[in-house]
Amino acid sequence: MRMLATVSYDGTAYAGYQVQPNAVTIQEIIEKCLRKMHKGQAIRIHASGRTDAKVHAIGQTFHFDTNLAIPEHNWKQALNALLPNDIFISSVQQVADDFHARFDVTAKEYRYYVRNAKDQDVFQRNYSFHVGETMNLAKMQQACHFIEGEHDFTSFCAANAGVKGSKVRTIYQATCEKNRDTLIFTFKGSGFLYNMVRILVGTLLEIGKGKREPSDIVEILTSKDRTKAGRTAPAHGLFLQSVTYQ
Amino acid sequence: MRMLATVSYDGTAYAGYQVQPNAVTIQEIIEKCLRKMHKGQAIRIHASGRTDAKVHAIGQTFHFDTNLAIPEHNWKQALNALLPNDIFISSVQQVADDFHARFDVTAKEYRYYVRNAKDQDVFQRNYSFHVGETMNLAKMQQACHFIEGEHDFTSFCAANAGVKGSKVRTIYQATCEKNRDTLIFTFKGSGFLYNMVRILVGTLLEIGKGKREPSDIVEILTSKDRTKAGRTAPAHGLFLQSVTYQ
Repeated sequence: MRMLATVSYDGTAYAGYQVQPNAVTIQEIIEKCLRKMHKGQAIRIHASGRTDAKVHAIGQTFHFDTNLAIPEHNWKQALNALLPNDIFISSVQQVADDFHARFDVTAKEYRYYVRNAKDQDVFQRNYSFHVGETMNLAKMQQACHFIEGEHDFTSFCAANAGVKGSKVRTIYQATCEKNRDTLIFTFKGSGFLYNMVRILVGTLLEIGKGKREPSDIVEILTSKDRTKAGRTAPAHGLFLQSVTYQ
Repeated sequence: MRMLATVSYDGTAYAGYQVQPNAVTIQEIIEKCLRKMHKGQAIRIHASGRTDAKVHAIGQTFHFDTNLAIPEHNWKQALNALLPNDIFISSVQQVADDFHARFDVTAKEYRYYVRNAKDQDVFQRNYSFHVGETMNLAKMQQACHFIEGEHDFTSFCAANAGVKGSKVRTIYQATCEKNRDTLIFTFKGSGFLYNMVRILVGTLLEIGKGKREPSDIVEILTSKDRTKAGRTAPAHGLFLQSVTYQ
């Protein structure tokens, strides 16, 4: 039978989600636990998508196939007992045999945290990007409006991403709010290109600093040229918040 | 001249504040940075007190003597440029030559964080103690009242502490509040014995779970017997919040 799991992880110690040689990844750790539970049989997991090194997840999802007849609640307990304490399975449920954690995604939500205060906060160093300059919140919020909707996001996709297919995506929500010393950027969309959220945030921060105008977003989108957008914001401020299925 | 510095640190990676052989401590790291700034001359720092392995600080303080004529603001910058990113100096100021960071303390505030929810939160794993059971907040708040005031805290001092002198301390404030899934215990007092906050919290949690009554605090205080109090709560939920001087 096919199981769908939701997992949160602190990406600080990992080289990202996807298995790669000579580096510890989230996928590898989870697959090792599943292999233990299956007495040595290799179990492949399929996530909603990858996350880069140092990127965190609140609600990443993956599916896997198993012959073990374990109640849903016990799956969660058994996996968490084996996982290290920076990875936590928050739910496991049975799904249809043709369900796919990546292909069946209808929406994803990412958040990006910026600590906007003069001093660094040691407790936030791995979970938000520190920006000391005063930021114009209203201008970033204006710019967010230009991101919402259906656009070709070629300019906001890493140039070396090697994505074939269409770079048109629909962003349902792009917002920026301030809570004390923290700027929280939220993006909800049909899908995201490689590095898209980090390039969007990098560009929005330049707008917040007054180096660009909110309407520049429109020009950047139209140009379909990665070099027109801002710098890629660092990975450690990014959280995959949730994945939605129909 | 004598300088007083305020420092925040994430204690996760350290064997505590005080220098000890074969372990990396906060004191050692800061003294190394000061030695670099003083071209190899050893500079000893004197903190308001020690913190144990994995205990954090928002506002720990220490003093040191120097012959370097550097403006106060530049001290902060220079030290932070040398320190690792889990230690941050938030201020440096000149003080009187007879000031002492430990002997001149008039009050200290500690906070202890408990994540009180069924599931663990990977992002809180190093910064709060996870307690899954339902807790009786009102009973813990009642018990806090019995802690306030001047008492002999022998029962709440680690048995192996080897403290000579009086174990009478005055607690100005002992409170427990709940913010979403987090219980925050705050203790403000004239001084604290070794492990005192952690033993107080361990005992309060047993009251919260219904294993003891709030009035048990009075009996435990009167007994002057460490074995009557609860278990020592783990170090990683504890924060030295601030140190007050006259």
